[in-house]
Amino acid sequence: MRSLFSSIDPFALPTHGGDLAAADARFGRPAAGWLDLSTGISPFPYPLPALDLSYCQRLPDATMEGALREAAAAAYGVAAAEQIVVAAGSQAVIQTLPRLRPFSRVAVIGPTYAEHTAAWTNSGHQILPCETIERIGDVDVVVVVNPNNPDGRRHDPKRLLEVAATLAKKGGLLVVDEAFGDIDPDQSLAPHVHPGLVVLRSFGKFFGLAGLRLGFVICDPAMARLLRTTLGPWPVSGPALHIGRIALADQEWMEKARVRLVREAGLLDTLLAKAELSIAGGTALFRLINAPRAWALYEHLGQRGILVRPFAASPRWLRVGLPPGEEGRRRLEMALTDWRN
Amino acid sequence: MRSLFSSIDPFALPTHGGDLAAADARFGRPAAGWLDLSTGISPFPYPLPALDLSYCQRLPDATMEGALREAAAAAYGVAAAEQIVVAAGSQAVIQTLPRLRPFSRVAVIGPTYAEHTAAWTNSGHQILPCETIERIGDVDVVVVVNPNNPDGRRHDPKRLLEVAATLAKKGGLLVVDEAFGDIDPDQSLAPHVHPGLVVLRSFGKFFGLAGLRLGFVICDPAMARLLRTTLGPWPVSGPALHIGRIALADQEWMEKARVRLVREAGLLDTLLAKAELSIAGGTALFRLINAPRAWALYEHLGQRGILVRPFAASPRWLRVGLPPGEEGRRRLEMALTDWRN
Repeated sequence: MRSLFSSIDPFALPTHGGDLAAADARFGRPAAGWLDLSTGISPFPYPLPALDLSYCQRLPDATMEGALREAAAAAYGVAAAEQIVVAAGSQAVIQTLPRLRPFSRVAVIGPTYAEHTAAWTNSGHQILPCETIERIGDVDVVVVVNPNNPDGRRHDPKRLLEVAATLAKKGGLLVVDEAFGDIDPDQSLAPHVHPGLVVLRSFGKFFGLAGLRLGFVICDPAMARLLRTTLGPWPVSGPALHIGRIALADQEWMEKARVRLVREAGLLDTLLAKAELSIAGGTALFRLINAPRAWALYEHLGQRGILVRPFAASPRWLRVGLPPGEEGRRRLEMALTDWRN
Repeated sequence: MRSLFSSIDPFALPTHGGDLAAADARFGRPAAGWLDLSTGISPFPYPLPALDLSYCQRLPDATMEGALREAAAAAYGVAAAEQIVVAAGSQAVIQTLPRLRPFSRVAVIGPTYAEHTAAWTNSGHQILPCETIERIGDVDVVVVVNPNNPDGRRHDPKRLLEVAATLAKKGGLLVVDEAFGDIDPDQSLAPHVHPGLVVLRSFGKFFGLAGLRLGFVICDPAMARLLRTTLGPWPVSGPALHIGRIALADQEWMEKARVRLVREAGLLDTLLAKAELSIAGGTALFRLINAPRAWALYEHLGQRGILVRPFAASPRWLRVGLPPGEEGRRRLEMALTDWRN
């Protein structure tokens, strides 16, 4: 049975994926447990290495952070570890960057991950929402998520470098959030940072360990020093430093994960196509459905214990993350069959 | 053999305790491993509970953070969980507080933990160092560590509340850093917060789990909301939220830990007295030695694989943390006997 479109209040939609407490409150806790497809976090986590108790006991020292930065530099193709700043998730950097600049006019290329606009607004900057990088106008800062969340739109790295160079000349800044950039490392600007260009990388999404809170900034060394001073000592936990270092050095696992995620995304595509749901875009970690009455479909799935992500920005959008295997796919398929009937 | 006093450059002294990488570089790695007495972190950690993989995989949700805030409210005697903000260590809050205020004249009661002055300075405020709370003069913000680090000086809670009230009347702020406040919970201002009074609590020191990165702000609900917005979503890792909740609800362990730490501090006192080292103060988590040629003693101990904490502020000071048991005490005792001979 379909829910009524008119019953959905866009202001009551969740502002982030993954909040099962809110899902419980809205739909009741499903007997079979939630099938949480509301995030872009890989359901195939990096296997946790054994963890010495001392990583929890001691304050992380410079050697641990240095080793992680070296591993991240190699993994992201960054020339020098001094260009890397570690943070407790790229979200912590999103919160911090706006505080490092005087009043700026900021073009956020969107619709996109809403926390960028929120953070620049909270720090008193002027936001100029903008649909494409070609229409940014006369601004000081440009924020672009590449590939974009939730629609997966790709920006040409060469074009982004031109924009960064133009901004840099006038003391501006290009922020490229590559939270979903691990699948296509060739598209990353991490190897090309210079003053005026800042790249964000997320650890938790591709490695399926978002709860650890680990992310990176790649930028010129002066900006890196400023960010480290602003974040302060010991921003990241010992377990995250240790696990991050091991995972980012595991090239074989990363290669296999890329192949697996692309295959799993293909299986999700097949399933959505069977349900005649059109896909507007995405990355290997999620797909964006563009369908009439998407919010009602969100309700329909929620009532069946399957959480996806609606967006207040469009009543036609739903983001669907990767099911964690065959059983999850079957559950989603059944719920979508119900929806069509 | 004693080192020469004149060989020590105060600018080359460590700025924090616990940095074994720096100690390796300075003294070489000891064959027996470091006996690290350079911090105020308890060497008797809370036993780690079993950790479900999902705490590393998933973004922590509101229920997890809410449960931790409830546990912290009960443990710290705070009236309502909405007065509590969780952060990745109280250091993260020290970095953040100065950014929430317009230009302020800030009295930091010191000498004390140096990161307070560093953070307020980095945010462009004017620092007025001040030795006692009675001499703060006409300032907007007062920062006091209670009990103080490194000398253990106690400030009367009633007097602090009067200062807070005076500051609050003119829109000012009293920051009370109770990083070492777990031993004497009766002295805490956490139950008495109001607009204009902010209390910081550290999780990692008393519970011996500093690597987890967990700390708290206790403040009025409006300030709490502002801080949460500034720190952004998911500031703390899933493992830290989970372990923190269990540990802070374990009143029996906390009671026993208080008794044990006081006893261990007494054993350290006996040992230092035997070596004729005079104790200038401290808390149950560390003692402050006041002795001639303290920096040379730091070198002497370092060469024997024992790391303590010197301070550029005084060539007579050394902070000595609790040895992790009988063997550590014996090692320290032998090295101090060498020193006297």
